[in-house]
Amino acid sequence: MLRWLTSGESHGPAVLGILEGVPAGVEITTDDIADALARRRLGYGRGSRMKFEQDAVRLLGGVRHGSTMGGPVAIEIGNTEWPKWEQVMSADPVEASVLDVDAGTGDTREQARNKPLTRPRPGHADLIGMAKYHLDDARPVLERASARETATRVALGRVAAALLEQAAGIRLVSHVVQVGPVQAPDDAPAPGPDDVGALDADPVRCFHADSSERMVAEIDDAKKAGDTLGGVVEVLAYGVPPGVGSYVHADRRLDARLAGALMSIQAIKGVEVGDGFRTAARRGSVAHDEIVRDDSGRLSRQTNRAGGVEGGMTNGQVLRVRAALKPISTVPRALATVDVATGEATTALHQRSDVCAIAPAAVVAEAMVALVVAETLLEKFGGDSITETARNVRGYLDAIPETMR
Amino acid sequence: MLRWLTSGESHGPAVLGILEGVPAGVEITTDDIADALARRRLGYGRGSRMKFEQDAVRLLGGVRHGSTMGGPVAIEIGNTEWPKWEQVMSADPVEASVLDVDAGTGDTREQARNKPLTRPRPGHADLIGMAKYHLDDARPVLERASARETATRVALGRVAAALLEQAAGIRLVSHVVQVGPVQAPDDAPAPGPDDVGALDADPVRCFHADSSERMVAEIDDAKKAGDTLGGVVEVLAYGVPPGVGSYVHADRRLDARLAGALMSIQAIKGVEVGDGFRTAARRGSVAHDEIVRDDSGRLSRQTNRAGGVEGGMTNGQVLRVRAALKPISTVPRALATVDVATGEATTALHQRSDVCAIAPAAVVAEAMVALVVAETLLEKFGGDSITETARNVRGYLDAIPETMR
Amino acid sequence: MLRWLTSGESHGPAVLGILEGVPAGVEITTDDIADALARRRLGYGRGSRMKFEQDAVRLLGGVRHGSTMGGPVAIEIGNTEWPKWEQVMSADPVEASVLDVDAGTGDTREQARNKPLTRPRPGHADLIGMAKYHLDDARPVLERASARETATRVALGRVAAALLEQAAGIRLVSHVVQVGPVQAPDDAPAPGPDDVGALDADPVRCFHADSSERMVAEIDDAKKAGDTLGGVVEVLAYGVPPGVGSYVHADRRLDARLAGALMSIQAIKGVEVGDGFRTAARRGSVAHDEIVRDDSGRLSRQTNRAGGVEGGMTNGQVLRVRAALKPISTVPRALATVDVATGEATTALHQRSDVCAIAPAAVVAEAMVALVVAETLLEKFGGDSITETARNVRGYLDAIPETMR
Amino acid sequence: MLRWLTSGESHGPAVLGILEGVPAGVEITTDDIADALARRRLGYGRGSRMKFEQDAVRLLGGVRHGSTMGGPVAIEIGNTEWPKWEQVMSADPVEASVLDVDAGTGDTREQARNKPLTRPRPGHADLIGMAKYHLDDARPVLERASARETATRVALGRVAAALLEQAAGIRLVSHVVQVGPVQAPDDAPAPGPDDVGALDADPVRCFHADSSERMVAEIDDAKKAGDTLGGVVEVLAYGVPPGVGSYVHADRRLDARLAGALMSIQAIKGVEVGDGFRTAARRGSVAHDEIVRDDSGRLSRQTNRAGGVEGGMTNGQVLRVRAALKPISTVPRALATVDVATGEATTALHQRSDVCAIAPAAVVAEAMVALVVAETLLEKFGGDSITETARNVRGYLDAIPETMR
Repeated sequence: MLRWLTSGESHGPAVLGILEGVPAGVEITTDDIADALARRRLGYGRGSRMKFEQDAVRLLGGVRHGSTMGGPVAIEIGNTEWPKWEQVMSADPVEASVLDVDAGTGDTREQARNKPLTRPRPGHADLIGMAKYHLDDARPVLERASARETATRVALGRVAAALLEQAAGIRLVSHVVQVGPVQAPDDAPAPGPDDVGALDADPVRCFHADSSERMVAEIDDAKKAGDTLGGVVEVLAYGVPPGVGSYVHADRRLDARLAGALMSIQAIKGVEVGDGFRTAARRGSVAHDEIVRDDSGRLSRQTNRAGGVEGGMTNGQVLRVRAALKPISTVPRALATVDVATGEATTALHQRSDVCAIAPAAVVAEAMVALVVAETLLEKFGGDSITETARNVRGYLDAIPETMR
Repeated sequence: MLRWLTSGESHGPAVLGILEGVPAGVEITTDDIADALARRRLGYGRGSRMKFEQDAVRLLGGVRHGSTMGGPVAIEIGNTEWPKWEQVMSADPVEASVLDVDAGTGDTREQARNKPLTRPRPGHADLIGMAKYHLDDARPVLERASARETATRVALGRVAAALLEQAAGIRLVSHVVQVGPVQAPDDAPAPGPDDVGALDADPVRCFHADSSERMVAEIDDAKKAGDTLGGVVEVLAYGVPPGVGSYVHADRRLDARLAGALMSIQAIKGVEVGDGFRTAARRGSVAHDEIVRDDSGRLSRQTNRAGGVEGGMTNGQVLRVRAALKPISTVPRALATVDVATGEATTALHQRSDVCAIAPAAVVAEAMVALVVAETLLEKFGGDSITETARNVRGYLDAIPETMR
Repeated sequence: MLRWLTSGESHGPAVLGILEGVPAGVEITTDDIADALARRRLGYGRGSRMKFEQDAVRLLGGVRHGSTMGGPVAIEIGNTEWPKWEQVMSADPVEASVLDVDAGTGDTREQARNKPLTRPRPGHADLIGMAKYHLDDARPVLERASARETATRVALGRVAAALLEQAAGIRLVSHVVQVGPVQAPDDAPAPGPDDVGALDADPVRCFHADSSERMVAEIDDAKKAGDTLGGVVEVLAYGVPPGVGSYVHADRRLDARLAGALMSIQAIKGVEVGDGFRTAARRGSVAHDEIVRDDSGRLSRQTNRAGGVEGGMTNGQVLRVRAALKPISTVPRALATVDVATGEATTALHQRSDVCAIAPAAVVAEAMVALVVAETLLEKFGGDSITETARNVRGYLDAIPETMR
Repeated sequence: MLRWLTSGESHGPAVLGILEGVPAGVEITTDDIADALARRRLGYGRGSRMKFEQDAVRLLGGVRHGSTMGGPVAIEIGNTEWPKWEQVMSADPVEASVLDVDAGTGDTREQARNKPLTRPRPGHADLIGMAKYHLDDARPVLERASARETATRVALGRVAAALLEQAAGIRLVSHVVQVGPVQAPDDAPAPGPDDVGALDADPVRCFHADSSERMVAEIDDAKKAGDTLGGVVEVLAYGVPPGVGSYVHADRRLDARLAGALMSIQAIKGVEVGDGFRTAARRGSVAHDEIVRDDSGRLSRQTNRAGGVEGGMTNGQVLRVRAALKPISTVPRALATVDVATGEATTALHQRSDVCAIAPAAVVAEAMVALVVAETLLEKFGGDSITETARNVRGYLDAIPETMR
């Protein structure tokens, strides 16, 4: 049983998460978490906020001397800009007058920050969030609905990734296969675990050099046009033992859990396992992965259309999932909306300068896959220490009959 | 808190499900369930089994005199062919000799039924299921991994649909938008709640007449070629109040839950909310649904690209999701596999005569959407009787300020 | 992850349960379940219903040829008296006139059965259940609130017990330590796993012969006085490996789960682990179990005041929990109530002839302990087959350092 | 759906918790939390640590300007002594040499703090925790198993209590009814919501003045004897609407949830609802609460033996539960144990100077009751804002027929 909660607002003092159910003995450090968060800040087409967003990571619980202790792991990511926000986002009541002033900076954004937000942005949670939570200001909505929250997922996902590698040698890779209409070729080679450095270095986290260039050009073009872009990311998991997940109940299927986890990422509108929607257009004779014995005498597949999942379980092939990201909703060309304070038609406030957030989306998707695979792996193998989990994995693999390997 | 479990094997005495958390006072009868199950048996391209699969429904718990009582609802769907299977699938031990004979029918399938299945089918759970559950026969695997289990989902989903309609006037529609490579046009009008009869009558549950014809032809062609087909289904929910689901935590998002639920259906490999992957290719200025005030003075959208979900919440537009079904894995043209009893290369057993299961997949997807929306609706509105839930829905809607409606 | 749902009403066609998460390969038969249910019908002081309550058990899912398959296990317990109830408890609507008649038996109970119940019984769910579920008849309330539902718990618990014994050699014992004011001595020897036959044979499931006689006398006396009795039961689990449960989070504690599970049994009002409330009166120097090395060189305790649980985990000693049962609420000497149809003061209907249900309560408590320990054991050890779970248990025990055993 | 996780070690930088599912609009401030924590530090017989344990509370998420926003509420309680512990409890690796020195204070405790703990204390998680989590030092075990963790429960419970009062007027009271063998009389009047100030002022949180004096004397006596004490606490909830919790499924029963929650508190060994074990000794005619119409014309009970729960639901009477606390396990008179580093017999380290922790246990029990009732209340009434939840509560109460009130 691995489970987690996150908390915190985009401009609050911190965002944080607790991951419960991590076995003892997983090696992890503050630097590991900080590095994962740094990867989330990468990507061509991102706005200036990413530069000053120096995540201030604190491991508050569950880890001692570089090793988990078995208890819940807590990670806090401080907001380095908090002093600018401490009145606006104060947990405790503040004098109304404090919110009236502009902090003397002459920067009109200082004032805007303090005012109730009443022009809900299409594509965001603003309008419905206000109705649902009985609020007359969209501030509380956008503060929590913001993708800033994904920082906590990346942090917790990093712990899950350490668990996966140390318990079972599983390694994850995330990359970008589409930016707006620009797609990497279907037959381009997939990156492996040793290609992560190269992906981190690519401006759009794309493994296909020619496509990467075209993606960058597309982002430049969108920026010039005052517009934004989405895209498609892919996550690969190497080394997952066969039999993680199950067909015995709907909510035990690994593919179902992965789909839910990926779709839970802000702005994701589609999810595929393996060839996904492309498989729906094929005939059955060319849609599955035949089972053959390879030269080394082990069972193998000549294709991996299923993305490593059959019957809701990993089948020993590379686990492969995709997620479709809609373009950023805060569009420089302002979208039509209404001011809910007055009922009048207006345009939505534009507060952000990102053009495309596809590279970080890949990193977040990788984190979600790590969390889901870790949860499902622990369900199958149990274990209160990494030693115990690893021993159970090994014992299971060793017991699979020769003819089924 | 709405939750459910199902049990039962494809050729066992029954499949059954328990749905816990249904408020009291939901009107439902055995006939309602039977009708829902009959819709699941429809569809051009299905094999002969569907004909004799006369589902024998029994409401075993939770309902009295046509109305739920507040306790768990249990539905059993008997296997009308059970006499043929009672030795092979006996829960209790049987004499080995009983399984050796062929029941005197001269039908070799009678014997096959009794033999351990050791030639795992690609695309199925067979191979990995045996390794995972430490079995030397695929029979227990395929019996539970079979799509027969979806009958219980449809039955429980029917109860959820009754709840939705009686508590909040929500009505669901499912239809087919793609069979193999044949797609209904993107701009074809969507069916409404009153079109369900027409959809039930269409051979492939497609609302676009011309596409329906081409889909039927495609199925005929695939059958001639000894092949199978998949496709894409869409589910629409009309009348869902705004604010169902939430952005405040990953697993509270309605889109995440829907994606997980749809992907949990056997053979589904992709899921979209609204325009899904198509949105990823668009620019932001034409990817969202601007907020305008319509002639009646209410807030509205001129598009519904988001599929009725923003920030993980329903936004008052029609809820719209899609799922991609892979072609049936049991292909008449047998696929390569190995016999795990001997380790020798062979081909997979072909036991089934369906060419395309897209129409029932739509009905199952509709059931899953019903279950997820009902669960999420009850989280927001609570209620132990349908009267109470309906009152809470009404009270909430009435309290939304005029400027936000 | 082991989880379960039950459904069914006391006089409905059946009560049933689904247990999800049972590994494959657990040996279990219909007779095993029937035997467990028979033990639940034992006990001095029970009414006549128990005699004709010949539980008609059907294993509907998850088991084949005497062995679990990995999927959800479903058990149905038919109501052998269903023909008498099929109109009153019909799931589907019935003609009002059908409920008006008395079935021609001349038995006034036949008529009573069909009439709305509007005189809520103190100590039962009747009054509040009607208000909560918006009902004007207590029938739906008492049908589900009835202890008949515990039959499903006993059935599912029997599967859990098989799992525990086959995975880890764990064996459970339940017995009665108090009936009304009559207590077995604190220092009476506790029954072991081999004493279960003797306990089944004792009229009140008490292991202390002298106390048993006094308990029987107390029941006779209460019966003569037109009154009812409760008591205290104890469940012991032998052979639970150390380290099941955890201190790392509130809801991972085995003692917390056991307390919740025992208190969830109808009519239970108190729960203790080990010496429980008696420990609260002691001083610390005589309240704990010192750690010593015994003659065989293994760590041991000279006392077991903690009941085998320290820090929310099993500590290798015998697990020991108690539950206090209130006297049966349906008292022959009728209790004061009001008729909610009229608002008038009246007395509660008396429908039942049991004097004391302590012996079955012990059997139900044992089932709940089995379910909780199995759930917690699987969390620690995982495993999709009993072979795998058992191997993981063994691997863990073998890895505990010599100095800690 | 209300859920929570806590994290943090006793001597780590902080303990913290996240409470997910709180409606928007609950009024709460940092001071409210700090006050609740201050109440947890009260109580005669506590050691010196309580004095410097000035809880440094930070509301990190979910609250703005004194009001919840609908998202998860995060509360961090800093360890004001962290500088003394930052090497010993560092999340990141430290040089071995750092742990070798004694920080130059000459205080041998400084050194002890840095050494592996290998003499497990009876009554604690130490021994089994090491085996379970594969550790050769008990430090990680006792750091998390420590009752310091209850500070987070009290903090989160304070938010739940605000929710309960603001949504439904529910008010909680906790008090001490037994210290060691000294019991307050059964017929002593129970404190009401307005007596909380008096209870906070009493040295042992006892409402019965004479008993309070005897309890203080007992603590003095135990201290002189180098021993420790436990006791019994009671929590009362006033104003809970009838129908919270349910009989329809085992884990929906409020009493079951309360029992689990109370037993999850460190050192609790017994739980009672209402008269608990005392009820088991009574006959049925004097064990239940007859239903009568009182002078005001409303339904009432002349007794409250059931503790406000019938059929797993609140019945409109005062909710009343008790929990038995074992004496502190760290006994000045050292208990026998073994050194697991050497295998030799020894005595357990004594690190703590508390004699009796009964008063804080009452405060923690109150917090757990608040969390459970809030969770169950939200399940019944739903609501995303306190306005919505309160409206739903009112609507339900108003709809209960006159004859059932």
